[in-house]
Amino acid sequence: MIRTALCALLGIQYPIVQGGMAWVADADLAAAVSASGGLGVIGSGNAPPDWVAGQIDAVRERTDRPFGVNIPLFSPFAEQVVDLCIEKQVPVVTTGAGSPGPFLDPLRRAGIKVFPLVASVALARRLARQGVDGLIVEGHESGGHVGDVATMPLIPQVVDAVDVPVIAAGGIADGRGLVAALALGAVGVQMGTRFICTSECTVHINYKDRIVKAGDRATIVTGTSLGHPVRTIKNRMSREMARMEQTARISEEELIAFGTGKLRLAAEEGDIEHGSVMSGQISGLIDDIVPVKVLIERMITEAQEQISVLSRLCL
Amino acid sequence: MIRTALCALLGIQYPIVQGGMAWVADADLAAAVSASGGLGVIGSGNAPPDWVAGQIDAVRERTDRPFGVNIPLFSPFAEQVVDLCIEKQVPVVTTGAGSPGPFLDPLRRAGIKVFPLVASVALARRLARQGVDGLIVEGHESGGHVGDVATMPLIPQVVDAVDVPVIAAGGIADGRGLVAALALGAVGVQMGTRFICTSECTVHINYKDRIVKAGDRATIVTGTSLGHPVRTIKNRMSREMARMEQTARISEEELIAFGTGKLRLAAEEGDIEHGSVMSGQISGLIDDIVPVKVLIERMITEAQEQISVLSRLCL
Repeated sequence: MIRTALCALLGIQYPIVQGGMAWVADADLAAAVSASGGLGVIGSGNAPPDWVAGQIDAVRERTDRPFGVNIPLFSPFAEQVVDLCIEKQVPVVTTGAGSPGPFLDPLRRAGIKVFPLVASVALARRLARQGVDGLIVEGHESGGHVGDVATMPLIPQVVDAVDVPVIAAGGIADGRGLVAALALGAVGVQMGTRFICTSECTVHINYKDRIVKAGDRATIVTGTSLGHPVRTIKNRMSREMARMEQTARISEEELIAFGTGKLRLAAEEGDIEHGSVMSGQISGLIDDIVPVKVLIERMITEAQEQISVLSRLCL
Repeated sequence: MIRTALCALLGIQYPIVQGGMAWVADADLAAAVSASGGLGVIGSGNAPPDWVAGQIDAVRERTDRPFGVNIPLFSPFAEQVVDLCIEKQVPVVTTGAGSPGPFLDPLRRAGIKVFPLVASVALARRLARQGVDGLIVEGHESGGHVGDVATMPLIPQVVDAVDVPVIAAGGIADGRGLVAALALGAVGVQMGTRFICTSECTVHINYKDRIVKAGDRATIVTGTSLGHPVRTIKNRMSREMARMEQTARISEEELIAFGTGKLRLAAEEGDIEHGSVMSGQISGLIDDIVPVKVLIERMITEAQEQISVLSRLCL
């Protein structure tokens, strides 16, 4: 066992949170993670409240353990999903893509634990002052939407800047990564890419297989010119996106139109050449698809072993 | 005390290596690091063999402990500096900017321990097969010349791919970073930016002060279009460089001409607006200028404390 302050705060067994990935993290994955002792998180993405409500009910049918809902603030339904989470008394809400500003107070007044995702010291400081239960601090090596500072330098800088618990995300897929994150001052980790490669994740098998096959340099960041950098596996789609960005003749509208629907294409239809295969730089470390419970227990065992190794280095 | 396999391999007290930074890492810094129990490294940069010979002698006057010389393979004097290191029986050579290919065998035959710097699994694998004493594996968050994979995901991937000792570099400046690197499977760390902010480093005080003042997002990577990405502090010089890269009308020659001499301008003359202030993303964590001995001992104490904290998390 490895227990940190996060376990007591969220009522979970292991300090492992599953990233609330749009089009990927549904009730199947979230319920499996929560039932296995971590915190499963439903990715509401741009989905309407009806779909999210169904997923919340489905998680509750399968486990009575705590779980969360991720709300990306760019969703056209963000406000309605916030209301839904309050109505359904969801235990934890994580937010992405910006500052949750006005949603913070109503959520916390409803007794919901709120963990916004941040990628810089400045936003971490601002949100900690506004009042949050903790922060998910995500490095540049993450999959999907990314900031520009890597996990290794970012975590200790945020830990020193705020007095709320920090969950580290980006570049973590095994027990070694978990121990490294705790050493940097985090109270737990959030993993996205690693949880995609589990039996319970309902994403298309081509998406999982592509991550398993990927090496360390398999990913690319596009969308920087739009102010929305996104890390995906290098394929026909992302190379074309990169080319479009380099030619100044392409308008922002054309680029956005090109990107729209591409994540669904990869995740649901399995078109991993024309779709957007969001995935982190840790993809190269992932070489199997295993049940969530196996993954989590293996990580905890590895982490305990690694801590013993570290202890023996001290004379 | 924290001892790893690296300490025995190199005959050093602590598993801490100082980056051999051109224009920054001279005999003063290298001797201080070696005398304090780490491995000091002279940065030969593009300097002629005469200068390097003088620095080697100067280190030996101040300490009888092991030290190293860094040889960037793009140096016009690379071959002569290799010969010099063999002639002077330098204990350790680190190489940067490419594969040390033909230099490997003569150096190792002379009993010199060789640690090439790599930024990808592919090059790590190739060099491990050729025969090296270890690898310095450097993440995207480093200062100066960088690869594209961050330290957190890169280190375990290289550790799994090779059977030689791995030194982690990029994003490390304190005891927390040291423990994180060891948790990821490294046998030690190399730090560059952190060692710039020491009393013994002879770089211009403006350069050190700029790092101390920097925040987490203070750096930028330029030169990617040239195939030589370099991380520096954002200033007039680097912003102009980034602008020049974005306009396709600038030739490679013009870009190279613009960059030439800029590191010396910052490091020697202290012009931190028009010079190239090479520095990593960990700059934001660095908030003092201390003697090398204080820095190293503080890091080891912090690391020991952090390992105790980790041990107490295991039930």
